Amino acid sequence: MTHLPLGPGREFDRIRAIEATLGARAAALGDDCALIPLDNGDMMALSTDTSLEGTHFRRDWLTPEEIGWRAAASALSDLAAEGAEVIGLLAALTLPGDVTDAMATAIMSGVGACVSEVGGKVLGGDLTRGTSLSVTVTVVGRAPRAVTRHGANAGDGVWVTGTLGSARAALAAWDSGREPRPTARIAFARPLPRIAAGRFLADVGATAMLDLSDGLAGDARHLAAASGVALDIDLAKLPIGAGVTEAASALQVSPAVFAAEGGEDYELLATLPPRSAAKLKQAAAELRVPFTLIGSVHAGEGVRLHLDGQEISIAGYDHFR
Amino acid sequence: MTHLPLGPGREFDRIRAIEATLGARAAALGDDCALIPLDNGDMMALSTDTSLEGTHFRRDWLTPEEIGWRAAASALSDLAAEGAEVIGLLAALTLPGDVTDAMATAIMSGVGACVSEVGGKVLGGDLTRGTSLSVTVTVVGRAPRAVTRHGANAGDGVWVTGTLGSARAALAAWDSGREPRPTARIAFARPLPRIAAGRFLADVGATAMLDLSDGLAGDARHLAAASGVALDIDLAKLPIGAGVTEAASALQVSPAVFAAEGGEDYELLATLPPRSAAKLKQAAAELRVPFTLIGSVHAGEGVRLHLDGQEISIAGYDHFR
Repeated sequence: MTHLPLGPGREFDRIRAIEATLGARAAALGDDCALIPLDNGDMMALSTDTSLEGTHFRRDWLTPEEIGWRAAASALSDLAAEGAEVIGLLAALTLPGDVTDAMATAIMSGVGACVSEVGGKVLGGDLTRGTSLSVTVTVVGRAPRAVTRHGANAGDGVWVTGTLGSARAALAAWDSGREPRPTARIAFARPLPRIAAGRFLADVGATAMLDLSDGLAGDARHLAAASGVALDIDLAKLPIGAGVTEAASALQVSPAVFAAEGGEDYELLATLPPRSAAKLKQAAAELRVPFTLIGSVHAGEGVRLHLDGQEISIAGYDHFR
Repeated sequence: MTHLPLGPGREFDRIRAIEATLGARAAALGDDCALIPLDNGDMMALSTDTSLEGTHFRRDWLTPEEIGWRAAASALSDLAAEGAEVIGLLAALTLPGDVTDAMATAIMSGVGACVSEVGGKVLGGDLTRGTSLSVTVTVVGRAPRAVTRHGANAGDGVWVTGTLGSARAALAAWDSGREPRPTARIAFARPLPRIAAGRFLADVGATAMLDLSDGLAGDARHLAAASGVALDIDLAKLPIGAGVTEAASALQVSPAVFAAEGGEDYELLATLPPRSAAKLKQAAAELRVPFTLIGSVHAGEGVRLHLDGQEISIAGYDHFR
């Protein structure tokens, strides 16, 4: 089995233990997607992702359609991170007794709306009666050239799509008993999977890519570990999302640190050779996605985050709490 | 969207409501697997299936390895029902606080052992902390000729693989506070997905096929509804599994009725033209799987079960309780 290095963290210790036990019974684990070679040289990309009430969402935060949309978007984001196009998804719902049939249908309607928005279909599913509401989405895509986490080279630039921190700003508002600002709320409730941006980044030569589900600080470490390189990131360059300045100020941290710590943005982090930079600037308007250069790749290991000349230490975000 | 008729039942009412809402955002739902055409004419087959503590298994019944094996086998059985070979699977685990890292690794070891037994690999996964233990397995396979539920023709024979009722006998023992007989326990804890038998049945011309996850009585209705035919099944011909006679006698029902009512056998039900019968008898020894002719296909609709000259009425098994 090919072992793909992961960054530090207890969740990743568990994955390493499972990989060690499975040995040859597992393919290479640890990238955004499993990749299966097809006869024409394309790769089929697959990933599975569970959204669980109480851990990933609450029913007093999101409508049933948004619960479905967000579950689908979070899984589809892994296809975006491979540079894949979307074929579709399968959704396994576990429904507690207080979820009506109409709510279950509304959740699936949100799943369908999200996958349809990025060109795919609902391919199948499963319904189970249980005690916790959960939506496990398995996405299926294909890519002429899949971009993994392990190809970053010294000299590449480090780029990010969209803006960061708004999903965390929404969570911070709910945590303090307030309703989030609409733009921050939408960032959390209806993130748009970056499929078009991911395909474009693959086309123009991205050397490594992943999606920011665990926050920039933690995810950058995975990319650095998998590629065997060091990343240097200037937090002053981060594209800051709506609602972040206000939420960061309430916690007395800088907006950039708040955004770098937050998980669940589902934006893409990619490394590209310098010659690709001009193409990104041209495409941003057409794709309606900002691309921002936030750092550079060097020989070495680990991630160095700095802000206003000072090195900053930031913990990764751990879904597995 | 192609609408595939399903048999009666509240679970299937829910699936029909979801299909109606999704409209063009869904592919044809309701078969064992989603099918995606590949460039060389093969089909990629995909299916997702949740195994949930309290609904599908209990920790005092099964070891962690068996929980993983059974979850994988139940999902892989859907590939068998398409006549597909196995590429691999993705497993999403939700783990409550009392499941140790060693238990989680043991569950994944069982998943890996099962998929490895039928020639596939663990391709990926997801770990989530939650309140209920669940394993959602998404299987991936490919088939040169996928066998759906809707091709049965009048004049075909109705065949079943293996033996029926042992998984239910194990459940009946546990329900009455006894440990099941080892052969019945193994039928429940470590069912062997009928991948080789499914591929063989596809090769020799199966016209329709599904796996017996909901019990012969209910699943036969799905096959009849999808194919637009009537099935005539002679319960006296059912191959009865180990432990069934004893368990049926405790409930004062005939072994055949006990076996026809039980779910979770994960054997295959297939319709084949009469000319295939000789090939099945030859292959049974080589594949080490019994094939039994239990009925016939006719013009009309619905399923007629009879035993010793009497027509028998049997309820389907509903996972979604």
